[in-house]
Amino acid sequence: MSKEDLNIALIGRGFMGRMHSNAWGQVGRFCDPPLNPILHTACDTVEEGLSEYAARWGWQNVCTDWSDVCASPEIDLVDLGVPNYLHAPMAIEALKAGKHVTCEKPLAGALREAREMAEAARASKGKAFVWYSYRGVPAVAFAHQLVKAGTIGDIRHVRAVYLQSWADESVPLAWRFDKKLAGSGAHGDLNAHIIDMTRFVTGEEITEISGAIAETFVKERNKITGNVAGGIAEGLQKAKQKGRVTVDDTVLFLARFSGGAVASFEAARQATGNLSRNGFEINGTKGALRFDFERMTELEYCDLSTERATRGWTTINCSDMAAHPYMGAWWPEGHHIGYEHTFVNMASSFLRVIAGDEPVVPVPDFEDAYKTQRVLEAALVSAAEKRAVPLSEIK
Amino acid sequence: MSKEDLNIALIGRGFMGRMHSNAWGQVGRFCDPPLNPILHTACDTVEEGLSEYAARWGWQNVCTDWSDVCASPEIDLVDLGVPNYLHAPMAIEALKAGKHVTCEKPLAGALREAREMAEAARASKGKAFVWYSYRGVPAVAFAHQLVKAGTIGDIRHVRAVYLQSWADESVPLAWRFDKKLAGSGAHGDLNAHIIDMTRFVTGEEITEISGAIAETFVKERNKITGNVAGGIAEGLQKAKQKGRVTVDDTVLFLARFSGGAVASFEAARQATGNLSRNGFEINGTKGALRFDFERMTELEYCDLSTERATRGWTTINCSDMAAHPYMGAWWPEGHHIGYEHTFVNMASSFLRVIAGDEPVVPVPDFEDAYKTQRVLEAALVSAAEKRAVPLSEIK
Amino acid sequence: MSKEDLNIALIGRGFMGRMHSNAWGQVGRFCDPPLNPILHTACDTVEEGLSEYAARWGWQNVCTDWSDVCASPEIDLVDLGVPNYLHAPMAIEALKAGKHVTCEKPLAGALREAREMAEAARASKGKAFVWYSYRGVPAVAFAHQLVKAGTIGDIRHVRAVYLQSWADESVPLAWRFDKKLAGSGAHGDLNAHIIDMTRFVTGEEITEISGAIAETFVKERNKITGNVAGGIAEGLQKAKQKGRVTVDDTVLFLARFSGGAVASFEAARQATGNLSRNGFEINGTKGALRFDFERMTELEYCDLSTERATRGWTTINCSDMAAHPYMGAWWPEGHHIGYEHTFVNMASSFLRVIAGDEPVVPVPDFEDAYKTQRVLEAALVSAAEKRAVPLSEIK
Amino acid sequence: MSKEDLNIALIGRGFMGRMHSNAWGQVGRFCDPPLNPILHTACDTVEEGLSEYAARWGWQNVCTDWSDVCASPEIDLVDLGVPNYLHAPMAIEALKAGKHVTCEKPLAGALREAREMAEAARASKGKAFVWYSYRGVPAVAFAHQLVKAGTIGDIRHVRAVYLQSWADESVPLAWRFDKKLAGSGAHGDLNAHIIDMTRFVTGEEITEISGAIAETFVKERNKITGNVAGGIAEGLQKAKQKGRVTVDDTVLFLARFSGGAVASFEAARQATGNLSRNGFEINGTKGALRFDFERMTELEYCDLSTERATRGWTTINCSDMAAHPYMGAWWPEGHHIGYEHTFVNMASSFLRVIAGDEPVVPVPDFEDAYKTQRVLEAALVSAAEKRAVPLSEIK
Repeated sequence: MSKEDLNIALIGRGFMGRMHSNAWGQVGRFCDPPLNPILHTACDTVEEGLSEYAARWGWQNVCTDWSDVCASPEIDLVDLGVPNYLHAPMAIEALKAGKHVTCEKPLAGALREAREMAEAARASKGKAFVWYSYRGVPAVAFAHQLVKAGTIGDIRHVRAVYLQSWADESVPLAWRFDKKLAGSGAHGDLNAHIIDMTRFVTGEEITEISGAIAETFVKERNKITGNVAGGIAEGLQKAKQKGRVTVDDTVLFLARFSGGAVASFEAARQATGNLSRNGFEINGTKGALRFDFERMTELEYCDLSTERATRGWTTINCSDMAAHPYMGAWWPEGHHIGYEHTFVNMASSFLRVIAGDEPVVPVPDFEDAYKTQRVLEAALVSAAEKRAVPLSEIK
Repeated sequence: MSKEDLNIALIGRGFMGRMHSNAWGQVGRFCDPPLNPILHTACDTVEEGLSEYAARWGWQNVCTDWSDVCASPEIDLVDLGVPNYLHAPMAIEALKAGKHVTCEKPLAGALREAREMAEAARASKGKAFVWYSYRGVPAVAFAHQLVKAGTIGDIRHVRAVYLQSWADESVPLAWRFDKKLAGSGAHGDLNAHIIDMTRFVTGEEITEISGAIAETFVKERNKITGNVAGGIAEGLQKAKQKGRVTVDDTVLFLARFSGGAVASFEAARQATGNLSRNGFEINGTKGALRFDFERMTELEYCDLSTERATRGWTTINCSDMAAHPYMGAWWPEGHHIGYEHTFVNMASSFLRVIAGDEPVVPVPDFEDAYKTQRVLEAALVSAAEKRAVPLSEIK
Repeated sequence: MSKEDLNIALIGRGFMGRMHSNAWGQVGRFCDPPLNPILHTACDTVEEGLSEYAARWGWQNVCTDWSDVCASPEIDLVDLGVPNYLHAPMAIEALKAGKHVTCEKPLAGALREAREMAEAARASKGKAFVWYSYRGVPAVAFAHQLVKAGTIGDIRHVRAVYLQSWADESVPLAWRFDKKLAGSGAHGDLNAHIIDMTRFVTGEEITEISGAIAETFVKERNKITGNVAGGIAEGLQKAKQKGRVTVDDTVLFLARFSGGAVASFEAARQATGNLSRNGFEINGTKGALRFDFERMTELEYCDLSTERATRGWTTINCSDMAAHPYMGAWWPEGHHIGYEHTFVNMASSFLRVIAGDEPVVPVPDFEDAYKTQRVLEAALVSAAEKRAVPLSEIK
Repeated sequence: MSKEDLNIALIGRGFMGRMHSNAWGQVGRFCDPPLNPILHTACDTVEEGLSEYAARWGWQNVCTDWSDVCASPEIDLVDLGVPNYLHAPMAIEALKAGKHVTCEKPLAGALREAREMAEAARASKGKAFVWYSYRGVPAVAFAHQLVKAGTIGDIRHVRAVYLQSWADESVPLAWRFDKKLAGSGAHGDLNAHIIDMTRFVTGEEITEISGAIAETFVKERNKITGNVAGGIAEGLQKAKQKGRVTVDDTVLFLARFSGGAVASFEAARQATGNLSRNGFEINGTKGALRFDFERMTELEYCDLSTERATRGWTTINCSDMAAHPYMGAWWPEGHHIGYEHTFVNMASSFLRVIAGDEPVVPVPDFEDAYKTQRVLEAALVSAAEKRAVPLSEIK
């Protein structure tokens, strides 16, 4: 094949490292990307088990110093699967070295870091993206296309939630509950996704946070003791061992969009009954759309142009190879793809943009992700100060 | 039969007059109430067609002056099916005369009126109720019972919406769009219901409005011209004929409940795709409940006490004559009741309380409905002043 | 009003007596029928409680001898709410006297009786109908209209089930388990409905039973002892007291329709998890329809003429006053009607046909119901003889 | 690693070749199988593009003569992804050479071949399995476990369908419509799956086909002309070019299970509205289960041991790493796996059995698949002879 190779280094090998490894491996097998992704180096500060990990996922080399990765002339793209507080230093160093960067979401734990990352991206010859992976869900990508085509008219209402329920009292004090490591709780973990997703689908920006609540229901958690095998995150976790939860369990906020729509957002980790209800409903003057990740293949669509007698919500099984974005790479209609495929799909669009092609649907660069970060920040200010906060206040 | 008669007078005969007429007629046939409801007098200011109306629904007499009804020694209960601005004068006069009153919701168009009505009820020997009819939905009543029994534990999240979509640009300027007649738009019409419903189901009070948005998307509507046959509401409508919409199309707000839960509420009349999505989701520490009036027979319940492998949302068809509140009066399991039955069910509980019995589930008296009115008011203040509003501010 | 009165006599006052009473009362209040239905006489062989019953439901007179009712010159219509084995003698006597007859389904317990009833109807000046009440469900009536308009093209597949689960081992030997009284079990009780419903919706006839199974899982049941208050059915029940179940618990069959479609049918009383799943799916060359009575307001429709990308099952909430059959008499969209309304709707079409008007949608007369009866019979022959049975064999 | 290698050769590279390639590659990365699967050789009669194919999926060698593969001492397992009529010769030759075999479903196009394959497997030291891949769906595997544990009691009803809609008049005459190549139409393609799946879940055998219908709605199809690139199947297709459809579009049948349950089955390719509705409902004396592949993560469960008031269908999201079979290898709860994972899961169980371990849940060997084949045959006899057929007739 005459495709150019793109040498990738992955930093971090927790949950997201495994996910990214799979994405870079599968994208070549299924998606015919314009560049040939080479799994060049797997990097993690903990050496134990790293070679076995690399062998399993097909990484050709290992490395325990991430600065080496950023400095290496062999590496074209640095992929970050590390906790939020490490995004800024690593991404900025890689961008300064002219590498492309693909960074786990949210862009950063703190707004200032996010701004610096966006600035670094602007200054670099490398391209920089964030893995807001739900843009890689065919149903979500198709919703974006429908809205862009004017199918639902002017948007009046946006409702978005990301509800989970894994964080009851019995869950110990992992890094996700520590503000220093995670930046925030459900807010940065989950609201980040639905802010990005609704911005992506509507094509509009949030102009005001009209009110917000942040709450931590479980204020103390059991410290983690004993030896936790694993990568960067777990190592730090072990070292800290504190009892107080310093992040939110839930953040709700109301907002206005640039086109006049009103909106509500909610992220929660103790929304009993919900495992991964990441979804939205958008009501426009000509139609409406609904999505829930717990049924990720389905998009619900109400089309006001049909006559009243047969009008309703149509459940579209977004799995047609010819009709639905990203599906051409996969299986015949009715044969599902899953969570991991959203990362493979994102990787295929990243590779297309790096090669100078159009992505299947737009993917978020650092500039774009910085906008999401400003919304996250504005919501926290609104919750703390119990007032509406125009986005123009947040730089 | 040895049951005592209860003579009822109905004022108003629009949509709600017809609904109340049916309720008072059917409650005796199906529900075995402790008092014998007599459809004594149908009252409306417009005489045309009134006798025919009375004959159809079984009212024994007609009357065109509502003061006569309040003054009549033959009447035991005055039932109000008139626009919101007429609730206060009529209810107060009836209560002063010692009558029982059953009033359409919301209690009043203005907070001051609501307070006066609650005071009048306190001072009267009559009992006074509000037709918050969704308490008469068996699934909602059962949700109340489950929460009260501790089934879902401490409540952490409340989400409530009442979404409709009938009010696009083509809809003319009916009384519902006039603040003087209606008090408010979607807020008083729809948020009133979900405030009452969540207070009823949770058994808790709202302590703070944490933020709010009120919006009128369609600011001007076509005036209604020509002769509109009908009752009090339509008569006034004809007289006014103005072009500006003076009420909201949508009101969203965030809130906190007395037990610590965080909550979101939304009422909308242009939420395309939704006809009558009046529902809630409540997540507690031991379980969760979900309801949507568009599938009014069903209550969804997640029970954390079951083991993980078989846990999920259980769709309960709340139609068992022995197991579910209010259903004993109706049909065997799986054989639905409908919207109008919720009024019949409410009427049966009203009659039980008047007779000194326990209601099937609690029904809202004026004191209770005044609390809902204060929440409505606080949300409007929050939206106008762009800040959180503690309920203690609102008297 | 200048409408003519129609004097009705109801025979039987069990579950169906109550249902018919309500239907005749409500049809005048809601549906503006062309004749004025008068609840003239309630008839039952057991006198105890009959007057109270009549007072409750608005019947003007009572009677304990059904022959008197058939003979009375004051009665225009005889309505039968009695066990199946009584349909033939009562209907034939009433028809001979020139009365209109409305008979509970199935037409008869035995095919010979059904044939005689159809003959009696043909010979009478009275009109004769059967309460196949699911034709009165707006979603089902709308399905009929869609198919008739060619919306789904040529029909290829019909799937119909009526699944209940009330008949486990603990249920005693009621009249429904006795072949002499009931004719058959789930077959006549439930398959009768789905045979009628699919014939109604498709507009086609069944031409062959291609195979069938009849099974009685619970072969013995506890005898009913003690005094059971009630009407005709319960009286007979008490007298008989036998232990063996002589009807089926379930009957399944495969069939072919006149237009070439293949079909499956299943009735069951021990289909755990199903309360009243009476429904169908019909796949045509241009579209498809799905209905389930457990969500009776909804009709699912797949329209092949829409483009693939947005195609799917549309859930139509069949509650629009202007767009959906029968709904004009009831409440605004999204406000449900229930099980009992299907009888009110049927009554309104019966009255229209008797008055010489078009029904809202076709209602089954005795000729039509006799065709359903022949299908029931053919399925039993097929099950007994373990072979395909062409309908032409069954007279 | 000290795991033993297992050298695999794949024959065929159409849709299923790609699927199997992915399965053998991913199983090592995710599932920790007890043997190390080596993608040794990709074999196809068409050489063009074969090396590129092998490179993409990680096959180390290529080969164009399948006899060489069966003879090679380096190969441990021969995997068949070829049309049905090639299963028997290839599998038998491989088994004679002592290889393990994993064969696409159904076992064979003709019953005689299936019997010979089962005999060959019995005589070989190799183990032989069939890719009835829906046993690899966690929800289906969990249903098997629940039934085996007695959770739903004695089984009374089985309903199974596999409904697709891709085969309208416009679809040309591909190999799937040719009896010589495919053996049968929807029957072998789809009924094979649901026969296997219900046998697997119930743990019972089918003892009688009580009636059946086989129908070909579209009797002629456009011949495929021009050069179709591809493997074995497409090559033969080109050569034949005939116009008549010689397989069924749909086959329905009724059946009895060994434990007394009655059952219905239906496979269809023109069931408009259904893309891949492969599912079942099973009603037992203590509970019930429902599955639909279009929502493959979900299993619906009704548990009669819960009290009536809160009883209903529980939608279990079968994605818990600890609680649900096969999920431990994948992602946290609520994060879906897709169609291709069912093959990876099957591969992991195949490898476990070959290594002498217990599979996650039982996988079908040739003996087991031969039983499914007998049911397929019995249904065709029943349809042709229009009578019930006991399975004992079919050898």
